[in-house]
Amino acid sequence: MSHTPDSAVRTYIAEHRETFLDGLREWLRIPSVSAQPDHAADVLRSADWLAAKLTETGFPVAEVWPTPGAPAVYAEWPSDDPEAPTVLVYGHHDVQPAAREDGWDSDPFEPVVRENRLYARGAADDKGQVLFHTLGVRAHLAATGRMAPAVHLKLLIEGEEESGSPHFRALVQERAGRLAADAVIVSDTGMWAADTPTVCTGMRGLAECEIRFQGPDQDIHSGSFGGAVPNPATAAARLVAALHDEHARVAIPGFYDGVVELTDRERDLFAELPFDERSWLRTARSYAAVGEAGHTTLERIWARPTAEVNGIGGGYQGPGSKTIIPSEALLKLSFRLVAGQDPEHIEKAVRDWAAGQIPPGIRYEIVFSGATRPCLTPLDHPALQSVTRAMSRAFEQPVRYTREGGSGPAADLQEVLGAPVLFLGISIPSDGWHAPNEKVELDLLFKGVETAAYLWGDLAEHWSHAP
Amino acid sequence: MSHTPDSAVRTYIAEHRETFLDGLREWLRIPSVSAQPDHAADVLRSADWLAAKLTETGFPVAEVWPTPGAPAVYAEWPSDDPEAPTVLVYGHHDVQPAAREDGWDSDPFEPVVRENRLYARGAADDKGQVLFHTLGVRAHLAATGRMAPAVHLKLLIEGEEESGSPHFRALVQERAGRLAADAVIVSDTGMWAADTPTVCTGMRGLAECEIRFQGPDQDIHSGSFGGAVPNPATAAARLVAALHDEHARVAIPGFYDGVVELTDRERDLFAELPFDERSWLRTARSYAAVGEAGHTTLERIWARPTAEVNGIGGGYQGPGSKTIIPSEALLKLSFRLVAGQDPEHIEKAVRDWAAGQIPPGIRYEIVFSGATRPCLTPLDHPALQSVTRAMSRAFEQPVRYTREGGSGPAADLQEVLGAPVLFLGISIPSDGWHAPNEKVELDLLFKGVETAAYLWGDLAEHWSHAP
Repeated sequence: MSHTPDSAVRTYIAEHRETFLDGLREWLRIPSVSAQPDHAADVLRSADWLAAKLTETGFPVAEVWPTPGAPAVYAEWPSDDPEAPTVLVYGHHDVQPAAREDGWDSDPFEPVVRENRLYARGAADDKGQVLFHTLGVRAHLAATGRMAPAVHLKLLIEGEEESGSPHFRALVQERAGRLAADAVIVSDTGMWAADTPTVCTGMRGLAECEIRFQGPDQDIHSGSFGGAVPNPATAAARLVAALHDEHARVAIPGFYDGVVELTDRERDLFAELPFDERSWLRTARSYAAVGEAGHTTLERIWARPTAEVNGIGGGYQGPGSKTIIPSEALLKLSFRLVAGQDPEHIEKAVRDWAAGQIPPGIRYEIVFSGATRPCLTPLDHPALQSVTRAMSRAFEQPVRYTREGGSGPAADLQEVLGAPVLFLGISIPSDGWHAPNEKVELDLLFKGVETAAYLWGDLAEHWSHAP
Repeated sequence: MSHTPDSAVRTYIAEHRETFLDGLREWLRIPSVSAQPDHAADVLRSADWLAAKLTETGFPVAEVWPTPGAPAVYAEWPSDDPEAPTVLVYGHHDVQPAAREDGWDSDPFEPVVRENRLYARGAADDKGQVLFHTLGVRAHLAATGRMAPAVHLKLLIEGEEESGSPHFRALVQERAGRLAADAVIVSDTGMWAADTPTVCTGMRGLAECEIRFQGPDQDIHSGSFGGAVPNPATAAARLVAALHDEHARVAIPGFYDGVVELTDRERDLFAELPFDERSWLRTARSYAAVGEAGHTTLERIWARPTAEVNGIGGGYQGPGSKTIIPSEALLKLSFRLVAGQDPEHIEKAVRDWAAGQIPPGIRYEIVFSGATRPCLTPLDHPALQSVTRAMSRAFEQPVRYTREGGSGPAADLQEVLGAPVLFLGISIPSDGWHAPNEKVELDLLFKGVETAAYLWGDLAEHWSHAP
């Protein structure tokens, strides 16, 4: 089998560009926010929409798989070559919460194109990157004249990724037979920059908890009682202050147990990337690059575990003042984990540590939500070379390697299915994941389509999946 | 002049009890929340209501005094004895914010009587305690057969006490001529317990500030950027954690400068009160009595300065989780001050201290709102004996001395008018000032009326105001 002529793929994509974008806009209008119970019906609607779209694309099997939470979507398109490898594409159809008043320039659920960028919640994370596989497989077929893909193609698009994938592992375990694959392609990551295409080789894991502190049974007058009873907002703040030591290392005993340290080669690969801290800070919308002592910024975000406050609240936050000792305070913490760390161990370490920090008279409760394991792709895996080549053809330049600081349930797929996990993502750091004005660069979105169109042929040609 | 026969005062009060309560309920229905701009019209309405009520009571002068913020109410009723001393009663007609969903059993602005207690925002703090002077002066006149009070009576009822009295001092300075008095009676405090009447001899002062922390220009993904840029919620929490040292003393350099320490006699007077820490904790709705090392609970709340967090906020506080580094965080801090402390000095000390605590990459802004000075009544002042005697007759038992942990602009009156400040308050700790289900005990409210009815005669009889 020879390479698909690039021009045939590109012509097909150009001809179907507007129809594809119409579909994506339709999907982005569905506010499938899995973390907010009042959007449960929207998450269902999003799953139904995607299943219908996959059927329309040509997948002979497209099903909505219920879970005890939000449903996933599964689809299958067997190859006409029975000997072909089986590939499972992973993505998610739920999105982060978003509201116009958070700082969006337009309604987050009314997609608009400005300067060749499509703005909407989910444009990059992850609906855009899921949907490029539909046009990708059609371009693959059109350019090769095939009736079915060169690989046995499966898609699993979950509905609870933004809520920590609480039912994903169980779903994969339950459906492991139908999900069986030789490799997993995760399309829920990014690349270095628009002009520096990269393949991601690992993601951090995630453990999240909410801690509620209760002081007085109700808000009390800070004049009448201040200085003589414990304040739950102070207790919450002190716990946050105790999270890190003076070297910005996480100060929770046992937190670093098992962490796989970077090799010299990995540190060199990171250091070779054209990293400009000033421009990275602009992307981060931040004013200082600070973090764990002894590590570079790239090491901190890709290969080091962290503890962050995602939310803190207690007492009066409105206009003016209210001289109270608040009754309650709240912390939302998240921990990014790296290879070698185990979410269950982290939960125990956090609980033990917190128990020792709570002052007399403060009651508290810690609730952990769904954890995500870290994962790392072997640098020498042959399928990784296929992804690299396909991307290189689409972008017409060499492809480098990165990691991703974010988290996804890829590690569960690797563990349960026993298949290596590879990453194909075209988002860039300025796309604003989880932030106001999330967008996807249209040029990159179609490079994603093109990469997908090349990938299945390359994999079938170069990789024998037989053990 | 001899004592008014107690039975005449009591009969008059009993006959006018229901009309008085109807008036109070009408006033409490006006949500005069000075801290919330959308209630500005209600604060105006409250002032108009009170001025009309004072005119109806018989005050020949009753005026609404505008300020750049909310208006005060002023009234005057000269004695028919030109040689009588002049007394200025201070209170406030604005109230703390309140909403049903904060934990109220009934609408905070729809007064209801349950078990001989009147529940409403402002019932005790301070509308009930202002209004008892109207029935008090009528009972004084009825029982003595006078056409005018035994003292030259003035009232100044401000409208911004719950917002830190930002324009009060200027108002007093501007109107010092009309406000001139030989003594100030503040009715905005409480007593020890329903069965232990007390006179307060001092109040703490107050300095308040709001600190806004800005990290990234918008919320950013905690996976993509976490561990490598500063988090403003962490910065806010660390500032709170740095407020106190390990002895629960305020750790801001210079904070204790000038503090007047308690004398042995004052510590003894405190220690003689029937203080039961368990029952006090129930009133405080709290689960531990903790505070500055080396001091008792009463010393901590009455005579020691404090730093408290009234509000903290940043990032995602809704249901579920949102893995962000928040763009902003907010702190509302208040400092209770004791005799010898100066709010301007405290503001400078806080600003200097905070400036040294802010990490790189975090921008911040501190705004101080109106400060209140601490004040202390000389224990040997003759007018204090009149208040003590009047209260003793109303309650038919000896009266002890306390202080108040809360704050009021009494110190400004003392300083600007050059008159001693005395306290006549009948509220008790369980009245729930600034809390849900604020109430006033009706029996105590009418003891307040009765005390006011005795006070003017006693003062005229026993105190020569001439220097």
